Amino acid sequence: MPDASAAPVATSQSDAIAALRQRLRDLKLDAFIVPRFDAHQSEYVAPHDERLAFVTGFTGSAGMAIVSQDEIAMFVDGRYSVQVRNECLGPEFTYHHLFDTPAEQWLSAKAQSGWRVGFDPMHLPPAWYDRFNTACIARAAAMEPCQTNPIDEIWDAQPTPPLAEVTPFPTQFAGQNADDKCRALVQELGAAELDFFVETQPDNIAWLLNVRGDDVAFNPMPQSFAIIEAAGTVHWFVEPRKLTEELCSHLADSVTLHPHDAFLNTLSALSEKETRVGFDPNFSGVAVRHTIEAEGAVACPLASPITHTKAVKNPVELEGMRACHLQDGVAWTEFSAWLMANVAPRASAGAPITEQEAQEKILELRQQRSGFLSASFQSISAARGNAAMCHYAAVGDRNAPILPEHPYLLDSGGQYETGTTDATRSFAFGMRPEGYDQAYTAVFKAFHALATLRFPKGTQGHHIDAICRRPLWDLGLDYDHGTGHGIGHRLSVHEHPQRIGKPYNPVDLVPGMVVSIEPGYYDAEKFGIRIENIFEVKEDGDGFLRFANMTYAPIQTDMLIKENLTFEECLWLEQYHATLLQKLSPLLSEGAMSWVSSVLRLS
Amino acid sequence: MPDASAAPVATSQSDAIAALRQRLRDLKLDAFIVPRFDAHQSEYVAPHDERLAFVTGFTGSAGMAIVSQDEIAMFVDGRYSVQVRNECLGPEFTYHHLFDTPAEQWLSAKAQSGWRVGFDPMHLPPAWYDRFNTACIARAAAMEPCQTNPIDEIWDAQPTPPLAEVTPFPTQFAGQNADDKCRALVQELGAAELDFFVETQPDNIAWLLNVRGDDVAFNPMPQSFAIIEAAGTVHWFVEPRKLTEELCSHLADSVTLHPHDAFLNTLSALSEKETRVGFDPNFSGVAVRHTIEAEGAVACPLASPITHTKAVKNPVELEGMRACHLQDGVAWTEFSAWLMANVAPRASAGAPITEQEAQEKILELRQQRSGFLSASFQSISAARGNAAMCHYAAVGDRNAPILPEHPYLLDSGGQYETGTTDATRSFAFGMRPEGYDQAYTAVFKAFHALATLRFPKGTQGHHIDAICRRPLWDLGLDYDHGTGHGIGHRLSVHEHPQRIGKPYNPVDLVPGMVVSIEPGYYDAEKFGIRIENIFEVKEDGDGFLRFANMTYAPIQTDMLIKENLTFEECLWLEQYHATLLQKLSPLLSEGAMSWVSSVLRLS
Repeated sequence: MPDASAAPVATSQSDAIAALRQRLRDLKLDAFIVPRFDAHQSEYVAPHDERLAFVTGFTGSAGMAIVSQDEIAMFVDGRYSVQVRNECLGPEFTYHHLFDTPAEQWLSAKAQSGWRVGFDPMHLPPAWYDRFNTACIARAAAMEPCQTNPIDEIWDAQPTPPLAEVTPFPTQFAGQNADDKCRALVQELGAAELDFFVETQPDNIAWLLNVRGDDVAFNPMPQSFAIIEAAGTVHWFVEPRKLTEELCSHLADSVTLHPHDAFLNTLSALSEKETRVGFDPNFSGVAVRHTIEAEGAVACPLASPITHTKAVKNPVELEGMRACHLQDGVAWTEFSAWLMANVAPRASAGAPITEQEAQEKILELRQQRSGFLSASFQSISAARGNAAMCHYAAVGDRNAPILPEHPYLLDSGGQYETGTTDATRSFAFGMRPEGYDQAYTAVFKAFHALATLRFPKGTQGHHIDAICRRPLWDLGLDYDHGTGHGIGHRLSVHEHPQRIGKPYNPVDLVPGMVVSIEPGYYDAEKFGIRIENIFEVKEDGDGFLRFANMTYAPIQTDMLIKENLTFEECLWLEQYHATLLQKLSPLLSEGAMSWVSSVLRLS
Repeated sequence: MPDASAAPVATSQSDAIAALRQRLRDLKLDAFIVPRFDAHQSEYVAPHDERLAFVTGFTGSAGMAIVSQDEIAMFVDGRYSVQVRNECLGPEFTYHHLFDTPAEQWLSAKAQSGWRVGFDPMHLPPAWYDRFNTACIARAAAMEPCQTNPIDEIWDAQPTPPLAEVTPFPTQFAGQNADDKCRALVQELGAAELDFFVETQPDNIAWLLNVRGDDVAFNPMPQSFAIIEAAGTVHWFVEPRKLTEELCSHLADSVTLHPHDAFLNTLSALSEKETRVGFDPNFSGVAVRHTIEAEGAVACPLASPITHTKAVKNPVELEGMRACHLQDGVAWTEFSAWLMANVAPRASAGAPITEQEAQEKILELRQQRSGFLSASFQSISAARGNAAMCHYAAVGDRNAPILPEHPYLLDSGGQYETGTTDATRSFAFGMRPEGYDQAYTAVFKAFHALATLRFPKGTQGHHIDAICRRPLWDLGLDYDHGTGHGIGHRLSVHEHPQRIGKPYNPVDLVPGMVVSIEPGYYDAEKFGIRIENIFEVKEDGDGFLRFANMTYAPIQTDMLIKENLTFEECLWLEQYHATLLQKLSPLLSEGAMSWVSSVLRLS
C-alpha cells in the first residue's frame, strides 16, 4: 500500500467541544493543541488515542487541531483538504494546510500576550513543541504542559487503553534471540558514547525483545516504552496485565519489567547530571527531552539504532518473508481467478460483487493459508473512481459494486507467523475507460523498470525514484505518492528508515532490506491503477545490488498494449508468471491454475 | 567539463615553510590555516591567491593546510589523494581526507591549551570557522584572525593582484539593463525583509551590473564585492585602476563606486544596530559575518538572490547561448575531421599529434569563429589512460602522443561574446582496447537517456541523476563525478545553484536554466570516455519540462555496438547529425562535411 495510512473509524463528537472549552477555562488555558499523535507518534493509533477525531470529528490519519474559545483551527495535508471540510462542519472551524501554513504561524497571529497554550507533552514531538514555543515567546504567551490530558477528563465514553496479551516471538522465526539483540544494541550505545537510549517505538521494542502483541489494529505488537542502558539493563515499560508467565520466562535476562506509567519517573531517576541520553526526536513526545534535561542530563537526539538494525532483515527473517509471500500468492491467485470469473455473471444476475465482499473474499482465502494471522492493514478495495483515492476504505456504507464496465483495484496484505505481506493489483473486465490501457501499460513499465534495476552500493531511495516514474513521465503522467516503503517482519506494514520516493532520504539501500515497489496512475472519477510487489535488496556482485521479488500474484495482461512493451518487458512478465506457477501450482485450485495459464500468454 | 576544477599551474615553494614558521613565531601564532579559497571562495583563483601552492607545493583545485611548527597537515579530497603525496614531500607533511577526517578533528587532537591558531578571516567561510572555533574552545585554544595574511608578508615574488580592465557588457547581449536588474533585486531584498545584502561572488556582480572583466583565467569578470541596499543604492567595491570612463558612464544610476579595500569598512559603517544584513555563507569569509555582528546588526545567512535569478537565463541570453554554440559546433566539427584524418598518418610518419597540439588546434579553430574571445577552461586533452583522470591538463612536460591504437578524449569550451560553451567528445582511431566499445555504447545510451527525458515541474537534479547512470549500472559500471552542472552566460563555465548528480540539490530545474549532461566511464591506465552537451530547460506542456540541446558536435559512431542500441537511440543520433549538418553546413569546410556524412550512417 502507498506510504500514508488508512482512515480510522469515526468516533462520536457530540458536545465534546463545549466540554473541552469548559475544562480549558477551569485550567485557565486559552488554547489546547490536539495532534493526532499518540505517545509513540505512530501512524496507527488505538481507539483510546483518537482524541482528534473525538473532539473535531476529523478521522484522517494525520492532522492537528488547536482549540481556542472562539475557533478550532484544523491543520491537515493535501490528502485531507476535502475530507476535513466534510467532517468538521460549523462556523468555528477554520482550515489550514499542515505544511504550507503551519500551525505555529496561526498561533503566532492568534495568541495574545499572557496566553497559556496547553498541550500533552507525551503527544507533541520536540520539533513541533519548539516551533510552537518560539511562536508563543514572540507573543509573550506560554506553552503549558498538561500532565493529564484534558480531553481524557471530558471523554466519558473514551475506550480503555488496549490490553492485548503479549506473546513470545520464537527465535525460530526471529532468527536471533533477544539476549543477542540486546547485547549488540548495548555495544552500539557504548560506541555512540551514550549512557542509555530511550526507545519509544513499539515495533522496535517488539523486535528487540522478540515479542508480539495486538494493541492496535493491523500492528502486531504491544504498546510499550523501553530504556536500554549501556551497562546492559533493558527497562521495559508495559502494562503488567498484558503479560503471562510464559512471556515473562521467555524474556531476555537483561530485561527489567516496569509498569507502563512508570516510564517518565524512571527516565527521570536514571537521568543524572551529565548522563548522555539518546532518544529519537521523531518518535517521542517532548516530555522525553524535558525529563532528561530537567535532571541536568544531556539529551542526544538521534534515530533509534534499532530502526536500522531491524530494517536489515537476517536470513531467517528473509526466509520467513519469502515463505509467507508464497502463501499470500496463493490467496492472491485464487482471488484473481474468482474475481475474473464472477464479476460479469454476478452483475448480469443483478447481484454484483461489492468492494466489501471482495475484501472479505481475500481475507477468507488468506484464512485458509498456513500461518495466516490477520490483515496487515485495512484493504483498499476500490472500484471505478474510488480507486483514485489512494487511501479509500470500503467500510460502513461505502461499498460500491464491481461492474464489468469499470476497473477495480485491490491493495491488501496479511500478517503471517513468519512475516508481513502487502501487494496491489489492478483488474479490468472487458470494457475499459479511455486511456486506461495506455496508463496500465505505463504503470507496468514503471514497475518493471525499477524491479529490474541493478544499482551500486551507496544508492538511496530518492536516487532511483525517477527511474520508476519515467515511463509515466514520457506520457505526461505521474503519481502523487511514494514509490516504495520498507515493510516489517510480522510488524508494521510501513517501516522506516528506507523509502523510495522524491523526498530526500539519506539511507543507503543495503542487502536484507525489504521494500515495496508500487507505481500507479489515478484519473479522478474514472479509475486508479497500481501494481505493487515486495522485494528484498540483494548483492549482485562487484559492489552492485538488485531487487529480488518476493510477491507472486498474477498481473493481468489483457490491458497491456503489446506494441508499447519491449522484448525484455514481455520476457520478464512471462518468466514472472512461469515462476509463479512453478512455486504455487502445488497449492492452487484448478480454476486458479487455468487463470494463470491464460495470463501467461502475452500476445 | 565535469563539475570540479582543473589544476592550476604550480608555483615555487622553496623555503616558504621556514619563512612562514618564523613569521608565525613573531606573531605568537602556534598554527596557521591555509585554505585554497580566495576572498570569493571561488573555484578558480588568481596567481596572487595561490597561497596554498606557494607554501606547500600542492596545486590541486581544492584543499587546505594547517601549518604548525612541527607539522604541515594537508587536507584534500579523493581526487587529490595521490597528487598531494607526490607534490608535498617531506617528513613534516601528514595527509588527511578533507571530509572523512576533517581538519577540525586534527586541530582538536593537536592543539594545546593556550594555542593561538591564525587564519585570514576573508578566506575562511563561516561554517569552517565555526568548526575550527568549536575545536579550539574545547582545547582552551583560540582562533586569531590576521588582518594581514602572514603568507603575503613572506612571499617575495607574490604576483600582484589582477588588474584587468572592466568592460561594459551590452544590453544587446545581456537582454536586460543593469538598472532593471538592480531594481528587481532591491524588491527581492525588501520582500526578504533585509536592509541590505552583501554580495561576494564576482560573477553575480558582473551579471547584475552588466560588466565583464578578465582577472582570473577563463573567468571573464572582475574580482569585486558589492553591497546592495534595500533603499536602492548599489555599493561596488572594485580597484579603480580597472575602470575606464566608458565603463563608468555605462554603470547603472544606483551604483556608487568604492575602492576594493573599502569593503569591510563600508560594511561596518552600514551595519547599524538591528539592521538585517543578508550574506551568502558559502561564498564569503567569516570576516563578513563578524563585521556585521560586531556592529550589533543581524547577520542573515542565505543563498544570494542573484544566484538563482542569474541561473534562469532570459530569452536574449538563451539566444546568445544558442548562437555561440553553433559557432563552437563548427570548431568541434572541423577539429573532429582534422583529428580523424591526421592521427594515423602523423603517427606513421613518426610525428604523432600530441595532446597539447590537439588543444591548440581547437583553440585555433575557435579563433576563426565569430565572437570568440578565449577558452572557457583549461582543455582536458587526454590520450589513453590520461583520459581516466577527470581533470588532467596537458601542460608543461605532460604531452602524450595521440596514437591510432589508443582512444582520446577532449573536453573543451569557449567564451564567446554572447555566451559560454563546454563540450566533451571521445575519439577512437581503428583499434580499441577491450571493453571500450561496450563502455562507449553505454555512455552514449546514458547521455541519450537523460537528453530525451521529459520530467514534471518540481524535479531537481538529484532526482534524475540515476536515469543517466542506469545504462552503465546495467553493466556494473559507473562514473565518480557529477552528471551535469550549470553554465554561465559569458561567465563561469561552472555555475550553481542547479546541478545534476547524486548529492542532494534542492533546486528545481526551471525553464531557462542551462545545464550540461556528461556521463562517462574511466578505466585507469587504459582509457576515459565522456560525452557532454549543453542543454536548456524548456517547457513541454501540461506541467512538464524537457532538455533542449544546444551543442552541435559530431558524435563518433564507429565504436557504437549497434545491437545494444534501441531504435529510438539510433533515430535520435541520426536526427542529431542531420540537424547538425543543416545548422552548420554553410560554415563547414568540405573535409568536415564529409566526415559528418560518414558518422551519419549508423549501420
